Amino acid sequence: MQTLDVALAERSYPIHIGPDLLSTSLIRERIRGNQVMVVTNETIAPRYLERVTASLGDLQCDTVILPDGEQYKTLATLERIFDALMEKRHSRTTTLVALGGGVVGDMVGFAAACFQRGVDFIQVPTTLLAQVDSSVGGKTAVNHPRGKNMIGAFHQPRSVIIDIRVLDTLPEREFAAGMAEVIKYGLIRDPRFFDWLEQHRSDLQRRDDAALTEAILRSCRNKAEVVAADETEQGNRALLNLGHTFGHAMETFTGYRQWLHGEAVAAGMVMAARMSRELGWLSNDDVARVAGSLSPWGLPVTAPEGMTTADFSDLMALDKKVRNGRLRLVLLKRIGEALVTGEYHPNALTRTLEAFCDKG
Amino acid sequence: MQTLDVALAERSYPIHIGPDLLSTSLIRERIRGNQVMVVTNETIAPRYLERVTASLGDLQCDTVILPDGEQYKTLATLERIFDALMEKRHSRTTTLVALGGGVVGDMVGFAAACFQRGVDFIQVPTTLLAQVDSSVGGKTAVNHPRGKNMIGAFHQPRSVIIDIRVLDTLPEREFAAGMAEVIKYGLIRDPRFFDWLEQHRSDLQRRDDAALTEAILRSCRNKAEVVAADETEQGNRALLNLGHTFGHAMETFTGYRQWLHGEAVAAGMVMAARMSRELGWLSNDDVARVAGSLSPWGLPVTAPEGMTTADFSDLMALDKKVRNGRLRLVLLKRIGEALVTGEYHPNALTRTLEAFCDKG
Repeated sequence: MQTLDVALAERSYPIHIGPDLLSTSLIRERIRGNQVMVVTNETIAPRYLERVTASLGDLQCDTVILPDGEQYKTLATLERIFDALMEKRHSRTTTLVALGGGVVGDMVGFAAACFQRGVDFIQVPTTLLAQVDSSVGGKTAVNHPRGKNMIGAFHQPRSVIIDIRVLDTLPEREFAAGMAEVIKYGLIRDPRFFDWLEQHRSDLQRRDDAALTEAILRSCRNKAEVVAADETEQGNRALLNLGHTFGHAMETFTGYRQWLHGEAVAAGMVMAARMSRELGWLSNDDVARVAGSLSPWGLPVTAPEGMTTADFSDLMALDKKVRNGRLRLVLLKRIGEALVTGEYHPNALTRTLEAFCDKG
Repeated sequence: MQTLDVALAERSYPIHIGPDLLSTSLIRERIRGNQVMVVTNETIAPRYLERVTASLGDLQCDTVILPDGEQYKTLATLERIFDALMEKRHSRTTTLVALGGGVVGDMVGFAAACFQRGVDFIQVPTTLLAQVDSSVGGKTAVNHPRGKNMIGAFHQPRSVIIDIRVLDTLPEREFAAGMAEVIKYGLIRDPRFFDWLEQHRSDLQRRDDAALTEAILRSCRNKAEVVAADETEQGNRALLNLGHTFGHAMETFTGYRQWLHGEAVAAGMVMAARMSRELGWLSNDDVARVAGSLSPWGLPVTAPEGMTTADFSDLMALDKKVRNGRLRLVLLKRIGEALVTGEYHPNALTRTLEAFCDKG
C-alpha cells in the first residue's frame, strides 16, 4: 500500500492506494464518532457495499443507495441523504462514507459539508476518474440545470482510500474516461509523466497492477501538490481545469447524458491544444501528440453531434472562469506546462470553435 | 454611525450601526465586482428594496423577492435564489445582499456559501433579532422538516449594515422577540449589561434612538467577541445557544409557525434558569429575575399549549448538542455567567421538563 499525504493547514489527510484495501480495517480506523452513513449507488451497492459495512460492525452503520448517473447529481438527490441522516438521528460527530464514482463523491462531500454545518467524510472512490481527480482536493458540488457544479463547497475528506482492485469491474469506457484525467496531469505540469504514459499505454490498457498503481500515485501526487499550494482555487489550481471550460459546455449541451465527464474533458483538452496552436505556443505535431494520447483509448476528440459555435459561446458565458465578463481559459504553453489566461485575441477563440464544430 | 470590527483570521469584517444607513453609499462601497443580487421578502420589498437598489445603479443589480416566513427557510426556497443567479448569469465575483430578517439572512448567507462554492455577501438586517444575532457570526442554514438549521455552512459576510431606522416599521411582537436575544447576552456573559437593560427598559420600550443604538452595539460586541474567539463553534460559542436547545424543541413542536424564534428562546432561557436552580446554581429570586426581564415584553415564559415532556425528550434527542448520545445543555452558573455541560443528574432535566410542561 502506498500512502500520500495531502498537506493542508489544520486539515491534512492521507490518501491510501493499493490492492484489496476494502478488505482491511482502514475505513474503520479513520472514523472518530460512533455513527457512520455509507452512501453509494445502485451499481456499486451489490458489488462492494457489504464488504464496507462488514468492517464497521461496532458502529451505528446506516446506508443510502442512490440512483446511478450524473443526471442525479442534484439538490433533490442531496435531500435524500439529509433525510436519511435525520431519520436515523445522526449527530454532528457522524462520518459519511462516499462509496462510488465522482458523482457519489461530490454529492456526499457536499452533504458532509452542509449537514449540521460540517461533518467528517471519507472518500472510497470506485472509478479511475474519481480515484485520480474528484476524490482529491475537497471540491464538492451538485449541478444546477443551467450549469455543472454550480452549487457546492470546499470540504476536505478525513482520508481517501483507493482500492485498485475495484477497477476490475469498471467498464472499459469508464476506465478510458479516467485515463483522460491521468493524461491531463502530464499535459499541465509533468512532461516526464506524459512521456511515461505514452510508453506504458499497453500496460495500462491491460490494467497491469504495477502500472496502474504508478499512474494513480503520480496523478494523485500531482493533484495533491497543486491543491496543497492553492486550496480554494484562487491561483494555479485553475490549471487542473484544462479542457474543462470547453468540456463543461459540451456536457451541458448533451444534458450530461451522452458523454462521460472524462470524455468531455478529453475533447476539451484537444480544443485547448488547438487554441494554443492558434496562439503560436504548440506546433501541429504537439496537437497531434495530444490527440494521439487520447484517441487510442476511444476518447472523443471532436465536438458532439449538432453542437455549434453559438452553443459553445452561449454555454461558456456561464462558466465560472468568467471574471467580470472576461473568459479566462486554461491553455498550453507547451506539453507539460499549462497557464490560465484571458489575454488572447478573441479571434483565436472564434477560429478554434469554428474549426472544432466543423470537425476540422 | 458606530463601527465594530469582527476579528476573524483572513475574514475580518465591519458592522456599521446607526440611523438612516440605507440612504448612504455604504453597501455600494463594500461590493468588489460588477454584479449584485439583492434578496429580500414580500414584506420588506415594498418598504426598503428601492432604497437599496437606488444606491447600486452603476452595477448589474438583480433582485429576488421571497415569501415571508420561517416555513420558507428550505432547500426549495434556496433553489429560487440559485435559479435567479444562473438565469441572470451571475459569476463568481457577484455579491449577494441579504435585506431582511434572520430567515432571509440565513438563507442568503447559505446561498452565498454554496453558489460557485462561495461568493461575497452583505447582511442588511431589518429586524432587531437579525441585527443582534443572526447577522453576526457567519452561521448560515436552512431548516430540514425534522430539525432547524440542520443544513448550512459557516460563511462570513463582507460587512453588516444595521440601519436602526428600519425598526420604526417593525411590529411590537417582533421587536420583543429581538429583545429576548439582547437580554441573552446579559445573561450569558455581561451582568452589567443585564443591569443596564433592567434600568432602561422603558427607554427601549418606546424605542429611544440612543438606548436602541447602545443595546444593539453592546449585543453585537458581545456576540462578536464570542465568535472571534471560536469561529466554528468548537467551544465557548455554544454559550450563545442559551435557551436554544429547549427553544428549538418548542419551535419544532409548533411547526415553526406559532412562535417567533426569539419567543421560543425566551421560554427556553426560563427553562435553563429553572434547571440551573435544580442544580443549585441559581436562587428562586434569580429565576424570578430572569423571567421578570422577559415577561414585560410579552415574551412567553411557559411551554406551548399541549407540549408534553415526551415531546421535549423526543425532539431534543435530535439536537446538535447531542454528542455521542449525551445531551449537553447551556445553563447558568449565575446571572451573567453561562456554561455548557453534560455533567448533571438526568433527574434534574426530567424535573425541569415536568414542572415546565405543567406550567408549574
